[in-house]
Order: sequence, then structure tokens, then C-alpha cells
Amino acid sequence: MRASRFFISTLKEAPSDAEIVSHQLMMRAGMIKRLGSGIYTYMPMGLRIIRKVEAIIREEMNKAGAIELLMPLVQPAELWQETGRWDKMGPELLRVKDRHGRDFAIQPTSEEVITDVVRTEIKSYRQLPLNFYHIQTKFRDERRPRFGLMRGREFTMKDAYSFDRDQAGMQQSYQRMFDAYVSIFNRFGLKFRAVAADNGAIGGTGSHEFHVIASTGEDALVYCADSDYAANMEAAEALPLVASRPAAAEALTKVATPDATKCETVAEQLKLDLSRTVKTIALTVETETDGKLTKQYFMLLLRGDHELNEVKVNKVAGLGAYRFSTEAEILEVYGCVPGYLGPVGTKAPVTVVADRTVANMADFVCGANDAGFHYTGANWGRDTAEPSIVADLRNVVAGDASPDGKGVLAIERGIEVGHVFQLGTAYSESMKATFLDENGKPAPLQMGCYGIGVTRILGAAIEQNFDDKGIIWPAALAPFELVLCPMGMDRSEAVKETTERLYAEAVAAGIDVILDDRGLRPGGMFADWELIGVPHRVVIGDRGLKEGNLEYQGRRDTEATAVPVADVISFIKGKIAA
Amino acid sequence: MRASRFFISTLKEAPSDAEIVSHQLMMRAGMIKRLGSGIYTYMPMGLRIIRKVEAIIREEMNKAGAIELLMPLVQPAELWQETGRWDKMGPELLRVKDRHGRDFAIQPTSEEVITDVVRTEIKSYRQLPLNFYHIQTKFRDERRPRFGLMRGREFTMKDAYSFDRDQAGMQQSYQRMFDAYVSIFNRFGLKFRAVAADNGAIGGTGSHEFHVIASTGEDALVYCADSDYAANMEAAEALPLVASRPAAAEALTKVATPDATKCETVAEQLKLDLSRTVKTIALTVETETDGKLTKQYFMLLLRGDHELNEVKVNKVAGLGAYRFSTEAEILEVYGCVPGYLGPVGTKAPVTVVADRTVANMADFVCGANDAGFHYTGANWGRDTAEPSIVADLRNVVAGDASPDGKGVLAIERGIEVGHVFQLGTAYSESMKATFLDENGKPAPLQMGCYGIGVTRILGAAIEQNFDDKGIIWPAALAPFELVLCPMGMDRSEAVKETTERLYAEAVAAGIDVILDDRGLRPGGMFADWELIGVPHRVVIGDRGLKEGNLEYQGRRDTEATAVPVADVISFIKGKIAA
Repeated sequence: MRASRFFISTLKEAPSDAEIVSHQLMMRAGMIKRLGSGIYTYMPMGLRIIRKVEAIIREEMNKAGAIELLMPLVQPAELWQETGRWDKMGPELLRVKDRHGRDFAIQPTSEEVITDVVRTEIKSYRQLPLNFYHIQTKFRDERRPRFGLMRGREFTMKDAYSFDRDQAGMQQSYQRMFDAYVSIFNRFGLKFRAVAADNGAIGGTGSHEFHVIASTGEDALVYCADSDYAANMEAAEALPLVASRPAAAEALTKVATPDATKCETVAEQLKLDLSRTVKTIALTVETETDGKLTKQYFMLLLRGDHELNEVKVNKVAGLGAYRFSTEAEILEVYGCVPGYLGPVGTKAPVTVVADRTVANMADFVCGANDAGFHYTGANWGRDTAEPSIVADLRNVVAGDASPDGKGVLAIERGIEVGHVFQLGTAYSESMKATFLDENGKPAPLQMGCYGIGVTRILGAAIEQNFDDKGIIWPAALAPFELVLCPMGMDRSEAVKETTERLYAEAVAAGIDVILDDRGLRPGGMFADWELIGVPHRVVIGDRGLKEGNLEYQGRRDTEATAVPVADVISFIKGKIAA
Repeated sequence: MRASRFFISTLKEAPSDAEIVSHQLMMRAGMIKRLGSGIYTYMPMGLRIIRKVEAIIREEMNKAGAIELLMPLVQPAELWQETGRWDKMGPELLRVKDRHGRDFAIQPTSEEVITDVVRTEIKSYRQLPLNFYHIQTKFRDERRPRFGLMRGREFTMKDAYSFDRDQAGMQQSYQRMFDAYVSIFNRFGLKFRAVAADNGAIGGTGSHEFHVIASTGEDALVYCADSDYAANMEAAEALPLVASRPAAAEALTKVATPDATKCETVAEQLKLDLSRTVKTIALTVETETDGKLTKQYFMLLLRGDHELNEVKVNKVAGLGAYRFSTEAEILEVYGCVPGYLGPVGTKAPVTVVADRTVANMADFVCGANDAGFHYTGANWGRDTAEPSIVADLRNVVAGDASPDGKGVLAIERGIEVGHVFQLGTAYSESMKATFLDENGKPAPLQMGCYGIGVTRILGAAIEQNFDDKGIIWPAALAPFELVLCPMGMDRSEAVKETTERLYAEAVAAGIDVILDDRGLRPGGMFADWELIGVPHRVVIGDRGLKEGNLEYQGRRDTEATAVPVADVISFIKGKIAA
């Protein structure tokens, strides 16, 4: 490609609404252009990167036996009503009426349509397993779109759907997709991590997320350096920090703790370590039976230095639909203002739920259910009943023991770019998608679904790879692998001739090369390509040519290297392959 | 590709709603699957063909200097309001409100968005010319979707938009696109014709349509075998069939023509050739000035054997908004029932508009403005005033002289699959898309737009190429170029070994091959591939192998040819290249 025949449009300053570095750099590099909130035109420079992402995904999906098709963007509401998602999904699902007043959804994902395709096509177990995928525009009407391609409304996604005759088959299909994702992210040249995930709203029995590692990531990833253990913070199991409960050593003592509604203040006032304190979180669960509302109350207990993990709370039996108790409810049930609650003396109707660590603590500090007072030396069994429920309620922290017993946990931040799910029969049952098994009996299809956020990959790759000059693309994703920068092509015949020859040789060698023939000054030219993030640059100038040399500089290099003209193509090929 | 790893789903019978052969065959061949009215999933077999169409378009567009980007599907109403198309387009434009109640269009085409991109990106004439394109899903909410991919609602289109500094530049860009389209349709291997077109609603100053020739086509194409002249029937100029008006030879005679309201009946009753008669069409044009409605009346005259061309009528000065007169209007204005009207005695407020041929006729037969009577021997000047307007009002007929004076016209039928337009400044003026010219003065961009109906190509190619067994793809569009059909791979080691070796060799030779390893009986296997339309088939069987031969059959061949095993790959390569 010659730059003069391409469209390059760079900006010195990013627009003020670009809050994060990837959004700023993509706008400045002319890769995307805003059309509306969360809606972008992919400009030629950006589209080249998207196509490279798509090509790698496609190759690896095909290799893994998935078959590409293309499902429509505008989908009849009837299918979405069959699974109940028409009602369950909120305003994120963009709904539209056609000229005849019929309801349609602009698809955010295609479980319903693929299940409809398969239920009419698949009759027998002999046709299974099957895995269909497409790479396609999606729309999710996010409440607050932002961060460029990271949380857009219109975006491109690869979604795949597997169909098996039984659970073992589904798990094989799942593993095949998991392995394909590992290959895909390896080929992207990005640092990534696959973590066990919470299943969320999509339902099903197991799932993993694929994250691009970046300090700016929204998600905390928990992993063990000494083993394969890795999970999203939401799903990472926290073991008790105290292996077994020590014997009580202190007497229960009520102490004044004025204005100490937080454990940190209590620890400070009492000159104790925060890990000796226990904090209390009051929850309410409302249930309606025959039009009558009943309320249940739960007291959650966490060590003072720990954070509540709301996803884990949701999984405690009876707490699926919890909310935090209101101040009025607390006053009524506990007879005390918030900030001084504790298990000592707490009884029905309140259910005490202790985190695993708290359940093994002795001589702990907790609220005295009396404004301005706490207890020290509180002990289970002696001062209060054993907790009704012991559960994992907290976020893990770095240094915690790994749940697999093989080392300690570390935490890093990541950006979710892929997700694999075992759906089981959630969709096939609601949509009556069955096949005839070996005995001629109808059985529901066992499904899996597998997504990659194609356009999001661009943002994530940049969040991981940039410096103060701009983007640093891994070679596999770069819009061009190599840029040729001639110095004064219009003035020097030697520069012109060498540049044109090199360009032809690079094209012939299969290098994705751009020749910058725009006639810019070196400063502006270099700044453009550093901003755009092309990984390899060769400068052709009279000075070097006199000695038979060109100047090579990798995007991460701090200075240029002289390379003999005759060697430069094989030199670059070596760099790209590295 | 191995058939066992692909998804093949053929049907013996097409669904009853498939009215035309391409729709029937695509459904039967498992290429598309209906999701809703005019909305189809592109199944794996169909998607392969779409991808081949797209790849050829992309290569030729790039070669012609067009630059690919990707514009959003969901587009803010504000842009469509700037050009007035938000109101002008009827219910075909699918409109949607987002969660905040803002209006959006699901794009049927992208003139507004690309003009918005360019008006913010282009400052100077130095950045021109530019041509951007994308290949993308479109939606048009057709009143009556039908014919499968031929008139769907959701479809794929390639749309390109050129921007130039002046009209001469725009015409060059237009010619470059025209030439690229010729290359594209040649590479498809389809018989096609480019014809001058009427501009229709999109506006602008010149356009051509590209049609795939097929007897089932909706459009009549007019062309001259002896020259380059070609036009859509709507736009094909009809010369007068009588070069100059002969002198009057007959006396004006009023004759009884009972129950003869059609020229055919009159000619029969009077035992005259139909070409001696003149038919009358009464039109009304209503105009509103200051809230007051005024009506103008026009009498159109055509030779009895000619057809009215409504597009041409629209272009006659004053007739832009015509409608056919009602019976009440005719009775009131002409004092005669319809069927017996004629120019003799017709005067103000009626304007007489004669077709070019009619204006040169002498001694013609026309209605006498008296129920049940016609005149014979009517002559211009002598019996009635010269027509107020002489215009081209009729469809050409085969055998007419070509307007370029180089031969006679022929007519064939076609399916419109491409359209190139000179838009001029229609969009750039309404959207204030200007650039600074050489004198530093702002000037509106000169635009062109260029569409190809990607998915429609599939339907058109089939309408042109099929037989009673199924589809016959040209090699460039076929889902696979070659199918290998082994006879009893599971029984014969020789068949298995030869098949696997041939398959590997074909892949290595870059042939797009599918190996049918499904283990079907020969009859079913052959029927599938004939239906799907793969152009080249090789059968590997023990009988042939004994003599060192395989059986080759081209999709259009009536019988198979024995080819020595060692020669088969080069033989196939020769066939594909042919």
C-alpha cells in the first residue's frame, strides 16, 4: 500500500470525551470516527486491524471444526419470547417495529436464532456434534456507552454455538473452544489469562472468561503462579485465613467506641490490628406469597479488613434476591443504629451468616448492638450461638492460599474479551430443540456458546501496549507490519530508486508494507507512524545509502540500527517472525 | 474441506412460498434459511458463495483506488433529516428509537454518513479525489418481500462513494467505477449488460445499471448489437418511426365504431393495420397555489401499437406530477366517455402532447370525441392544430432504429445487480460538505455513488445458470470448484488411498475442493452436488481404477470422461482456468 492511495488522518489532540488511553489513541490515529454515542465508523486504518483480528479468529475456529454461517441482524420477537429473553432483557435489547407493526430485536447475540436453525435441521444424534459460528455486527443499547470500542453500542462479535448429544460431548466441545481461544489469543501476541467465571444472567453450568492483561482493566483476575488456578475475582474461592478456631483466651468486654461506625476507626481507637475486628452487613430478602409480602433478615459477618463479594452472597441459599437493609429496618429489627451491630445477642428472626474466616476467629471485636459500643474478646459458642450459615463471602486478597492448595494467589487486572459458556439445555428446553437419540427417543440438545469481542480486542490490545508516542501493535494485529519512510524521495534519485525497489521486494516477500510517499517532513512522518503503532520502520536516506545502509527501528526500540540495503528484507522477515 | 466436517442440508422439494427458480434452488440446496419475511440466515453453503462474491468485489474496488471502511448500521436520524430523506423515504426506512427516545435509522444506504465523515475530514482540494466503500448488511423494509435473496429486507450491499473537486473529476471517478464494475462482472463469469438508466429518486445527473441477463429478469434492457448503445427500457430513447410526415391523402371521415374503445378493436372493425391508429391517454396535473387547487389537462397521443413509458411522461415539462384523469374529469372536459377521445376538435384547456411518431403520421385513425365513433383520414394542420408538445412518450420495440444511428435495437431481460450514479452536489449542498479550492474558496464536493447487491448476485447468477438438476455455478462463484466422490471408500482400500491422495494434491494445488466422505449412495451423492451446482466432479471407483482412470464430469456435460489418475489434477486446473 502507498500512503498516498490510502486514507491517513491523525490528530495532535484527542477529543475531550475520550477518557481512556485506547480511546484517545484510536481517535488520534484516525482508526475510528464517532457517529453517535457508542457508535463508530471504522476508518480504513482501523478496519485493517479488525480484519486481521477476524482472520485469525476464523482460521482457528475452522481448525477447531466450527462451521461459519451468518445469521440476520434483525430478528423476530417471537423467538426471543420463546426463551423469555424478550421480557427479561431490559432496554439494552434494541427493539423495533416493522412497517406492519411486527416486533423485532436488533441482535445483541444469537442463541435464539441458532437454536431455531438447529431444531429444524437436526433430527438425529448421527448429525452431532455441530458447532456454528458467525462474525457479525451486534447492538446493545448500553445505558452509558463510553471508552470508544471498549463499551460501544454497535460492535462486532464472533459468537459460536455448539450442539451435542450429552453433557460429556458438550464438555468436549467446550474444551475444544477453550483450546481454540488459547490459540487465538496467542496468535494475537497479547498477554492474556483465562479465568473461571461466574455464569451471570446467561445461565448454564460452567464458564471461563478470557482477559487481556492491562493495568487499566475493569476486572480483577486472581491466579496462582504455582498452578493453573485462575478465576475472576467474582468467582475466586476464598479459603478461611484461620485454619481452625483457636480456644477463647479473652473475656467478653463491652468498650466505648464513640463515633466508630467503621472497623478501621474501632481498630484505631482500641489500638488493635484491623484483622481482629468483624464487620456486620445487614441484608433483607423480601418474598411475596399469595400477594403477602414477608421479609427475612440476614446478618453477614466479614473480617474487618475483607471486602464483601456480592456475587458470592447471591449464591448463599436464601440470598438469591437480597438487598441491603434500610436504616429503618435495622432500627426495627436490631434496636440499634447501623455501625454498631454484632452477633452477640442477635437471634431470630435474624439469620447470622459468617464468612469462613470469621467462623474460625476467636477473641474478636464486634458491634455491641448498642450505639457507641463494641465488644472485645467475643467468642463463638461462648458469647453467641454458632453462626447459622458459614459461607465464602469475601474477595480473595493477594497472598491468600490458592484453593487448589498449590501456592498463594496473586491479583492482576484484565479486560474481558472472550467468554465461553456451558449452556446445557437452558435454551434447547425452552425452545424444544430436540434430537432423536440412539434409542429413537427425543432428547434436548446440550449447548455451549462462545463469544469474542472483535472490536473490543483493539481497545484491549492498546491498553496493554502503548507509550507516550502512541500505540505499539503486536505484529499480528498491526494495520501494517512495516512502514518505509523515504527521506526526500522527490529530491534524491537514489532514495527513490531504493525505496521503490525495497517496496516491491517487501510486497513480493509477503510483508504487509506501507510506503509513506506523502512527502511529509521526517518529524511529522515518524510521529504519525509511532502514533499509529506500526511495529517496524525502515528509513531510506542519502546519508545511510552512501554507506549502503538503511535505518531500522522497531517500535519499542530507543534508537535506530543501520542495516545493509541487501539484508533489509530478510532482516525484517526475521523481526516479524520473532 | 471434508463433507463430514461441513454442513450440507439438501431438500427434495422447495417450500411452497419459493416462487422463482433461484429461490427454490437456494432453499433446496441448503444455502439460505428463512428466519422471517425477507430475512434469511446465510447457511454455510450459501455464505461460501457470498464470500467469493465479496472477495472479487473487494479486489477490484481496491485496484480501482477505492478505500474500504465500515460505516455503522444504526445511524442517527439527524443526518437523515439534513438531507430530507428522513421524511422523503417512506416506511422502507426502518426507524428505531433508542432507550433515551432518540431516533435512528437502520441503514438502507450510507450517503448521509459518508458525507458526514468526509465533510469533517476533508479540508482542501489537495486531499481529493477520494473514494470510500464498504460491504455491509443493509435493511429495507419492503412492502412485499419475496423471491428469496432477490427482494429481501435484510441483504448485503457494497456501496462506494466518490468525492471530487469538480464535475470533470467526478466523471473520471464515475468512469473508473464503471470500468471496475465491468471487471467485477466479468470475473463473476456471468453474462451481463451495463445500460443507461433513469436516475430515479436518488437524484443526480447520470447513471448506469448493471444487469445480469436472465429471461426471468424484471427489467427490459434495450441494446444495439451493432454499437455500444444500451439502456434500460425506462430510459431508452425512441426515435420517430416515420422519418417525416407524408402529405394528407384521405378526407377526414367520421365512422361508426360501436363498442370499440380500444385501438385493436377499431383496427379490426375497420380492417386497418393497428399502426394506422392513434390512442389517446387523458392526464390531469393538480397544482395548489395559495391553498387553491387548479387542474391542468393533457391529452397524450401514442400510435395504437405502442406502449406508454411513464418514466418519459414524467420528464415532459409540466407533467412531473401527472395522474390519469378520472372518468368524471374526462366527461366534464371532453364531453365524451373514455375510449373515443381524439385530437380533432380538442382545444384549451387541454394541451395535446403527441409522441414523436404520432406527430409524423398522416391519414391516421383517432377517436371522434363522440361515443361509438372514430375518424379516419385525420391529418395534423388540416383537421386539427399541430400538437402543442411533441415528445418521446413510448417504449422502444425490437427493430426500432438505435438512437445512435448505428443499427437496430434488440430487447432482452435482466436482473439489476449494480448501479452507478453521478450525484453531483445534491448531498454535499444539503449537508454543507465543502472543501477549499485552489483559490481558497469553499466549494461543494462533487459526489458519485456506486452500489452492488452482493446477496442479490447469488439469485441472479442462478436465474441465469440452472437446469432441471439444479444450479450451475460459474467457477468463480461456486461454493467449491471441485467435488471428489469416492465409490465405497469404506470398502475399497484402493479407492480410499487414491481419494485421500487426490484430495491432498488438490488442496496443495490451490483448488477449492470438497471430499464427499459422507458415505452416501452414488445416486444421492451425485444429486446433491448437481443441485448445489459444483462445476467439476471426479468419481473415484474400483472399476475405473483397474484401468488407472477416474471419471470426470463437468456440471454442464451430459456424460463423464475417463481421465488417467496421474493427469487429473492438471486436467482439473485446466478446466477451472478455462
